[in-house]
Amino acid sequence: MPTERKLRIGLAGIGTVGGGVWANLARNADLLQRRCGATLEVVRVLARRADRARELGIPEAILTADPERLTADPAVDVVVELIGGTTDADRLIRASLAAGKHVVTANKALLAKHGRELFALASQYRRQLLFEASVAGGIPLIKALREGLVANRIESIYGIINGTCNYILSLMNDRGLGYAEALADAKAKGYAEADESLDVEGHDAAHKAAVITALAYGFWVPEGELPTEGIAGVRRPDIIYARQLGYELKLLAVIKADPDDSVEVRVQPTLVPKSHVLASVGGVFNAVMVRGDVVGDTLYYGRGAGAHPTASAVISDLAELACLGSEGIYRLPVGCGTCAHRLKPIEDIISRYYLRLAVVDQPGVLARVATILAAHRIGISSVIQPESHEGDTVPLVVMLHDAQERAVRAAIAEIAQQDVVRAQPVTYRVEDFET
Amino acid sequence: MPTERKLRIGLAGIGTVGGGVWANLARNADLLQRRCGATLEVVRVLARRADRARELGIPEAILTADPERLTADPAVDVVVELIGGTTDADRLIRASLAAGKHVVTANKALLAKHGRELFALASQYRRQLLFEASVAGGIPLIKALREGLVANRIESIYGIINGTCNYILSLMNDRGLGYAEALADAKAKGYAEADESLDVEGHDAAHKAAVITALAYGFWVPEGELPTEGIAGVRRPDIIYARQLGYELKLLAVIKADPDDSVEVRVQPTLVPKSHVLASVGGVFNAVMVRGDVVGDTLYYGRGAGAHPTASAVISDLAELACLGSEGIYRLPVGCGTCAHRLKPIEDIISRYYLRLAVVDQPGVLARVATILAAHRIGISSVIQPESHEGDTVPLVVMLHDAQERAVRAAIAEIAQQDVVRAQPVTYRVEDFET
Repeated sequence: MPTERKLRIGLAGIGTVGGGVWANLARNADLLQRRCGATLEVVRVLARRADRARELGIPEAILTADPERLTADPAVDVVVELIGGTTDADRLIRASLAAGKHVVTANKALLAKHGRELFALASQYRRQLLFEASVAGGIPLIKALREGLVANRIESIYGIINGTCNYILSLMNDRGLGYAEALADAKAKGYAEADESLDVEGHDAAHKAAVITALAYGFWVPEGELPTEGIAGVRRPDIIYARQLGYELKLLAVIKADPDDSVEVRVQPTLVPKSHVLASVGGVFNAVMVRGDVVGDTLYYGRGAGAHPTASAVISDLAELACLGSEGIYRLPVGCGTCAHRLKPIEDIISRYYLRLAVVDQPGVLARVATILAAHRIGISSVIQPESHEGDTVPLVVMLHDAQERAVRAAIAEIAQQDVVRAQPVTYRVEDFET
Repeated sequence: MPTERKLRIGLAGIGTVGGGVWANLARNADLLQRRCGATLEVVRVLARRADRARELGIPEAILTADPERLTADPAVDVVVELIGGTTDADRLIRASLAAGKHVVTANKALLAKHGRELFALASQYRRQLLFEASVAGGIPLIKALREGLVANRIESIYGIINGTCNYILSLMNDRGLGYAEALADAKAKGYAEADESLDVEGHDAAHKAAVITALAYGFWVPEGELPTEGIAGVRRPDIIYARQLGYELKLLAVIKADPDDSVEVRVQPTLVPKSHVLASVGGVFNAVMVRGDVVGDTLYYGRGAGAHPTASAVISDLAELACLGSEGIYRLPVGCGTCAHRLKPIEDIISRYYLRLAVVDQPGVLARVATILAAHRIGISSVIQPESHEGDTVPLVVMLHDAQERAVRAAIAEIAQQDVVRAQPVTYRVEDFET
């Protein structure tokens, strides 16, 4: 049994997540004390809004608006960064590490942007930079990847890691709503921010994918180089045709290593087979499937956002520090695990594709499309030509066999130029999760 | 970064799992070295069969048939117990702990039987007794419960934790096989042992449920007191009616805490709503849903058995020891977390029920059944009277509202005595996973 210890916490930020951390540390204080053999005590709180602090019952004596009161105070063992953004948060974390403090953060945007430097700093100062809460909220995914699956070379990771997008797509799927209606519903329920762009354009999921990639493959995808497509362009017909073909459209993060050590990383709406367990992940839930060379497929599911689930993850990092002591040993350092890996150029990625065209209703159209695809050596696995018409065009839905992105792009550009094709072709990747 | 260290392993048992551990330690040795900052080296192997050792490429110099060569050798830091059973394994673990060695085991039967004493011994000798591989194979469930969800009071755990049973039920569900055919298929594929009783009678799942209970609630369910029902009695009609009612029949371990600190623990075939993610867990896969008071529902899914998945879990425990050093700190000790908890008597459990009767085809039968249920204050939520007849009786399927086990038992005993009821009533619990 450990001897009695105390972890002195500087909590920076008391918004949704910070408030959740404060409340749940108090709520389960006895439990945490018993489990960790240490007391987790918040000794300083950085906050701009005194009214919010009062609402949470935070004593005035530990409140401050000055970040230096956290970073420069020797009585703070660990700084919990929950202020968000990539400027003040960055400054706070650097100052905390430099002052010899551990850091716990939920800030995926910051890690995606400056992770390489921040983890290097943590290593330099021999402090821990823990980030369980940055991906998949309350699901202990980082721990699973870092420790639970330590025996495995990670072959691939497939994740539904943005609850807002999954909620919107679930509504479009299950209740037949259009995108705008579904977004409005998500906002009304508090599942989407007033400015929804970070979520629906796929950036939040891309930040998380970058963090997972760093952990699993040891390199940080440079900002802007991670192929990202959101759900704002998703339309009902594609959801309906996908279902007819036995698939569900999900915003999927795909991280997949090739035998040549290049790693495919992307975030895109993707067709997932209905029978696959990822297709059954509905609403605001997140799920991540990790395929290891020893363990095979494992999957982790839970709430990916919200005050309480995220607090659960933040507190697990704090418990780690409390249990392992302030001289906690580094494990599986991030960003320098297997430096052989590198990002695979998007043009080299091989994938199946769903293709929807709006074509003129006349004989020979399918033949022309098939001929162009064949010229690019792309095979067709199935075709549906639904009865329902939209004006003077008819939809033509084609499922393609595995093909390289480069060839698919070229073929689609050529198809788009045909006079019988009356709108920009719609394409989505298809992921069958083959081993 | 940690300094160079070595973890010296004594591997006891080279059957399926032991062979997997040996092979995968070798296969990913460089990776493990890099990730742990330590070498994981097998320095002694306890095995009875020299031919199997040769097949695995184990050098003769480290082979022994004498357990004392592991337990008494100061050059062994940790003993990995994979010999199975509850006598030799028990002796080996006790001797190892007493000799100051850490122990890693996959032996749920032993833990369920002697866990209380073994963990007390580990605590006494200040050694670690790690058991990630004992439940849910390669899924890092123990780590999730112990560390990832440390901030949570565990409210409930629902698990599909026997792959053999899930495989058999999946075949009965998806391919319309009868129990005997499905069992034969499982045996042919190596998913069921020659003597299948430990699996199909629910004992293996009960052992695992006991281990999870000890971890989550701090007490060991005394052997024989854990209500256990296997799948050997499951018949096709019930699977079909369950589906008609919107459910799938699964062998489910249920561990649920009441506000009064009593804990319901049981392993039984149970109706699970088709829309629930647990219903989509097919074949030999395992899945465990854990509900925490902070995080809400989380779920963990993967292969629950087999050489490689189980090896993945064993090696993660070894990595833990390698990373934390031989003076590794105890965390969340098993069996003494929250000693307020105790087993809830089965008669007090409240549950919904599925009830199938074979009744005489005459008017008034349903009225008689409903009257008896009402006398015991048990409500009916739905009834199906299928058209298909079996001889001179007709099936009558009744879904009951929440009721106490005591009342359900009494009502069913009374119903069974009715002259219009021609066979022993079939009952299964229904779990709707309400919060």
